[in-house]
Amino acid sequence: MNILVTGGAGFLGRRLVNALLERGSLSDGQRERTVDRIRVCDVAEPDVALPDDPRLETVYVDISEPGAAERLVDSDTEFVFHLAAVVSGEAEQDFDLGMRVNLHGTMRLLEACRARETCPQFVFASSVAVYGGEMPAVIEDGTAATPQTSYGAQKAMAELLVNDYSRKGFVDGRALRLPTIVVRPGKPNKAASAFASSILREPLQGREVVCPVSEDTGVWVLSPRRVVECFVHAAELPAEEWGAYRCLALPGLTTTVRKMVEALRDVAGDGVARRIRFEPDPFIERIVYGWPIRFAPRRAKAMGFRADGDMREIVEAFVEDDLGGKFAAP
Amino acid sequence: MNILVTGGAGFLGRRLVNALLERGSLSDGQRERTVDRIRVCDVAEPDVALPDDPRLETVYVDISEPGAAERLVDSDTEFVFHLAAVVSGEAEQDFDLGMRVNLHGTMRLLEACRARETCPQFVFASSVAVYGGEMPAVIEDGTAATPQTSYGAQKAMAELLVNDYSRKGFVDGRALRLPTIVVRPGKPNKAASAFASSILREPLQGREVVCPVSEDTGVWVLSPRRVVECFVHAAELPAEEWGAYRCLALPGLTTTVRKMVEALRDVAGDGVARRIRFEPDPFIERIVYGWPIRFAPRRAKAMGFRADGDMREIVEAFVEDDLGGKFAAP
Repeated sequence: MNILVTGGAGFLGRRLVNALLERGSLSDGQRERTVDRIRVCDVAEPDVALPDDPRLETVYVDISEPGAAERLVDSDTEFVFHLAAVVSGEAEQDFDLGMRVNLHGTMRLLEACRARETCPQFVFASSVAVYGGEMPAVIEDGTAATPQTSYGAQKAMAELLVNDYSRKGFVDGRALRLPTIVVRPGKPNKAASAFASSILREPLQGREVVCPVSEDTGVWVLSPRRVVECFVHAAELPAEEWGAYRCLALPGLTTTVRKMVEALRDVAGDGVARRIRFEPDPFIERIVYGWPIRFAPRRAKAMGFRADGDMREIVEAFVEDDLGGKFAAP
Repeated sequence: MNILVTGGAGFLGRRLVNALLERGSLSDGQRERTVDRIRVCDVAEPDVALPDDPRLETVYVDISEPGAAERLVDSDTEFVFHLAAVVSGEAEQDFDLGMRVNLHGTMRLLEACRARETCPQFVFASSVAVYGGEMPAVIEDGTAATPQTSYGAQKAMAELLVNDYSRKGFVDGRALRLPTIVVRPGKPNKAASAFASSILREPLQGREVVCPVSEDTGVWVLSPRRVVECFVHAAELPAEEWGAYRCLALPGLTTTVRKMVEALRDVAGDGVARRIRFEPDPFIERIVYGWPIRFAPRRAKAMGFRADGDMREIVEAFVEDDLGGKFAAP
């Protein structure tokens, strides 16, 4: 059984690929299928090398280029995990690039699947960025997507495509709205959400960090470990459990910067936690305060998707998975 | 001041064009602008000729053809009314045609406006077909669009585009979700909603008609007269009144087939009402029963959009506007 992972060189894609290799099989809702090949696609080689495994095949191509999607999807591709995207900050700065990759790239990939007539399971990484503007205090399953970024608008349009292509029987789609993923490994990036990972990752590696928002700032988070479980779970759920609409917001954890710092102190001690310095940045604060932080993802929970237990669990998982079990004590 | 009306040969487009010609001016939210030219675009000439007016210019072209949108939008186009669409039944039967016209055609038109850098008011005719599947008993302003037809999915994606192009300052967009428009003039078509107009239009013109759904069937309706008022009102409202999301469901009237027949009897007498014969069609019933019929369009009402008072008013308006004030008595 053959799998395609787009955006497979990114930190989530890589982790998903590793999880699929380790598992060695996936259920298609009826029977367990052995993983024969994972085709990993991304625009460029990853910073951290993918494992040396004969089942892996890498293709470095931009999915929005004419002909690329057709090359990626074969007549025996049974699962597609579509994670490739231009991130929010970049899609806002370069509107055409975001449209090309996030909307048209997804459309091309769906068209390539439709042309194969094999109706693969199609797991799509969407985002809570589809919410914005005037929102209720708690986001419910039936809350409207009213995005206030081009990234969010492109993700919302792609969700509609995934749903309609599923309804028509072209793919068997499952779209997941991801919370802010914490702790993201690697270097700090320029996303407004970067602080949510930096304030944990940097101190644990012995570096000082500036937090640009106040301790009361709320965030809706999910760990890389859990989100990979959610991708796999989404792929394995039988089609009939998805009902009339193939998209849902994943469960997560409503936390605050204060709770994140407390968890860091619990796991690594006060000396590590004191590596965080607070210097509010009004620009970042204005963006971050517009994000939804309270969700009631009843449907996802009923379907068996799971969030992390608490912030401590998230910090411990990062130390275990990304730091080899050790952090830099003072 | 120059206006573009796409789908201008359709029954709503034609009525809108006539209303704009009669008015002779439109406010852009700041000052009243005289109508100098209305460019009417459609794929084919209308059944009923457009008025002979020197301000009218007709262009028969498919907006989804390469280059068409660029020809339609000029650097002095200040208002765009985008009504052109492949209707629901056709978009469901021919997926590619619906995608091409309803999604890509709208995208091309928005891109043509963006290229002009004049940021025209862009009024888009969307539909309550964006709702579907599991819905609350009453559709609120914040209810999610979860379409169960390709037409609905394409309209929902186009709304997201109109909103994002507005947020970026490429157009000044306003998207309206239209109820079922009753009474639609002309011949019965193959839409599942055709009965809602046929059971009034046909008897008033002396013809017998079969109603394929029961008297208890609910419908959410708006008259052609009111919807044209809504298009004009949407264009004239200042941008700041639209807030963070440029799309809303229009007000309408929740009615039943029984109330429609009663209104017909009140206006035209029992002899005319008895031209309706009930022959339930399970196929039509199944589709129609999935439609939302109760809405709480608070935002639209607060912004001054108005529905019809009752069914009698709708029937009388049809007799006045489309039958020259006379109906066929038995």
